[in-house]
Amino acid sequence: MKGAASPSRGRSRGKGALRPIRWRSGALWLLEQRLLPLREKWVRTDSLEKVAKAIEDMTVRGAPAIGITAAYGVALAGKRSRAKTAPVFQREMEKAIARLRRTRPTAVNLFWALDRMQKTLDRVRQAPLAAQKKSLESEALQIHREDEALCEKLGRWGALALKGKKNILTHCNTGALATGGAGTALAAITALGRQNPRLHVWVDETRPYLQGARLTAYEIAHAGIDFHLITDNMAAALMAQGKVDAVIVGADRIVVNGDTANKIGTYGLAVLAHQHRIPFYVSAPSTTLDLTKKTGREIVIEERGSREVTHPQGVAITRGDYPVFNPAFDVTPGRLITGIILEGGLVGPPYAKNLPRAVGRRLRP
Amino acid sequence: MKGAASPSRGRSRGKGALRPIRWRSGALWLLEQRLLPLREKWVRTDSLEKVAKAIEDMTVRGAPAIGITAAYGVALAGKRSRAKTAPVFQREMEKAIARLRRTRPTAVNLFWALDRMQKTLDRVRQAPLAAQKKSLESEALQIHREDEALCEKLGRWGALALKGKKNILTHCNTGALATGGAGTALAAITALGRQNPRLHVWVDETRPYLQGARLTAYEIAHAGIDFHLITDNMAAALMAQGKVDAVIVGADRIVVNGDTANKIGTYGLAVLAHQHRIPFYVSAPSTTLDLTKKTGREIVIEERGSREVTHPQGVAITRGDYPVFNPAFDVTPGRLITGIILEGGLVGPPYAKNLPRAVGRRLRP
Repeated sequence: MKGAASPSRGRSRGKGALRPIRWRSGALWLLEQRLLPLREKWVRTDSLEKVAKAIEDMTVRGAPAIGITAAYGVALAGKRSRAKTAPVFQREMEKAIARLRRTRPTAVNLFWALDRMQKTLDRVRQAPLAAQKKSLESEALQIHREDEALCEKLGRWGALALKGKKNILTHCNTGALATGGAGTALAAITALGRQNPRLHVWVDETRPYLQGARLTAYEIAHAGIDFHLITDNMAAALMAQGKVDAVIVGADRIVVNGDTANKIGTYGLAVLAHQHRIPFYVSAPSTTLDLTKKTGREIVIEERGSREVTHPQGVAITRGDYPVFNPAFDVTPGRLITGIILEGGLVGPPYAKNLPRAVGRRLRP
Repeated sequence: MKGAASPSRGRSRGKGALRPIRWRSGALWLLEQRLLPLREKWVRTDSLEKVAKAIEDMTVRGAPAIGITAAYGVALAGKRSRAKTAPVFQREMEKAIARLRRTRPTAVNLFWALDRMQKTLDRVRQAPLAAQKKSLESEALQIHREDEALCEKLGRWGALALKGKKNILTHCNTGALATGGAGTALAAITALGRQNPRLHVWVDETRPYLQGARLTAYEIAHAGIDFHLITDNMAAALMAQGKVDAVIVGADRIVVNGDTANKIGTYGLAVLAHQHRIPFYVSAPSTTLDLTKKTGREIVIEERGSREVTHPQGVAITRGDYPVFNPAFDVTPGRLITGIILEGGLVGPPYAKNLPRAVGRRLRP
């Protein structure tokens, strides 16, 4: 398969924006995240089933990235369809959407993106088949572009919040590999890096799944920003030595009082930052806000299997039959969060008052 | 080699005390710690060079365990010597001691144990060769026995300090695999486990070298105590949920004001325990006290290579050329420590007053 090594025809080594999801000549190219950073392999997905499998096996991960990939999956199913009539086409597309819905049952953005594709389908129901196919493709591209613009806003507001800080610590992966653009928390860091060439980042490896060691380190190296990889338990000592000026993380869910569910380890970092008087920021799109919940106590935390702990990257570091506790997330109380960066701007405490208000208006960076 | 699989002739599966250093019929048997817990392999070391290599390659680790192993190494060199005259024998022994001194340059117990062997050698200089050899063997056995007795005292005092606690969290490995007896902090846990069959332990995996996941989990399972392995960044969430009743760790060095150098990650745990009002204990023999230093700022922290972080158990989880910061230890301020357990008893704050006093007297548990 000519050109299968990369969709960008030799441009992947440049220091431009990292774009791991690419729609090129009717196929979706995905940067295989499970092999990063040891190998940069591009996967060409040219069928609905290949896209669904890429989501299931975590070739692509990160809630916004999953949603975008699924939207392209529907567009691809449309493009490949041999249906001769609108009803047959519509049935095929609905089956495609249903298949994609089953890939990752808890990813909110997945359902949101597929709902948009379904609405597009409903809207163009009466159009000629070629136009329907075109509309599905346009909608997927639009979803991707919107996320890109949103990430850019998060990056600009984030860089403003972090202005003047030299040593930033981050946890998990919240960059281009998790979204359709520059990311959330990591977008702030890369935006700040463009302003300050002396910026230095402490990258938490983020056990158990090692998103920091594998993906964030890769992204920060790609961006040409100075960094050191650390194990999660080193952050405290660095803070005590005055080597951390700010912490910024992403969020999986933020409730009314600012309580934030995010990757396990976030809460400990927030307590430590608070004790060392280091500002602690959360960056997330406003779709992450769950204003139906008053406090973090209402958030249900997913527990995952033991093998992520006992077999990092599939290799046994201890016995597989030892009992393991593996919560995927923890909840950081809003009172430990200096500010929440949304696409509309930086929101400070009291969150119960300011978060609902922030969703109403949109500031321009 | 008949019986090479185990020095204990079939008794190794029992739930008795774990004894990973065994002197049997003129050879030293070591439980190969680098393979634990995946494989229980015993290494028969029957020459000075084999003992030295076992220390260098970390077949045996943990400061007291290294000291004991080195002492047996001198005894072994004596036993194997073919010297016919005292001066030749003495020269051989001094070369053996010098060889062992070069194995791990920073292990305090190593030098202490080798100094004792040298003094023994000096004392029996005039005796017949057979008696000299016997004295070296006796001294090594004595060093081992003394450490065993010391661990037992630490265990008894520690269990007293932890009395009534159900969920204990510990970090790194401080048990039989690190000492000549039941350990320091882990001795308290196993002693408490004999009193309370409902005891439950949270075992920090202890990145980067994974002493918790590999060695402490193995020891706690061996002791038949209920436990869960966790990644280091999970402790904070467990504390917030009221699932940790006490934390106990070992120490590499304790200075006058109670500031304690210990495995990286200890300081963060101490801050978190303090914030959640959870008692935080340190257990160590009084030889760990360094009363020449007033505060932890005077302690030099060893930085180790990047591969422990990028290649746990030798397997790449990320690129080996990424910059890594890997301090082996951190310093926990005495003000965060509820009590320090020495073989003489539990010492509470103010440490600057109580630690020097505690070294003067020895209480009986």
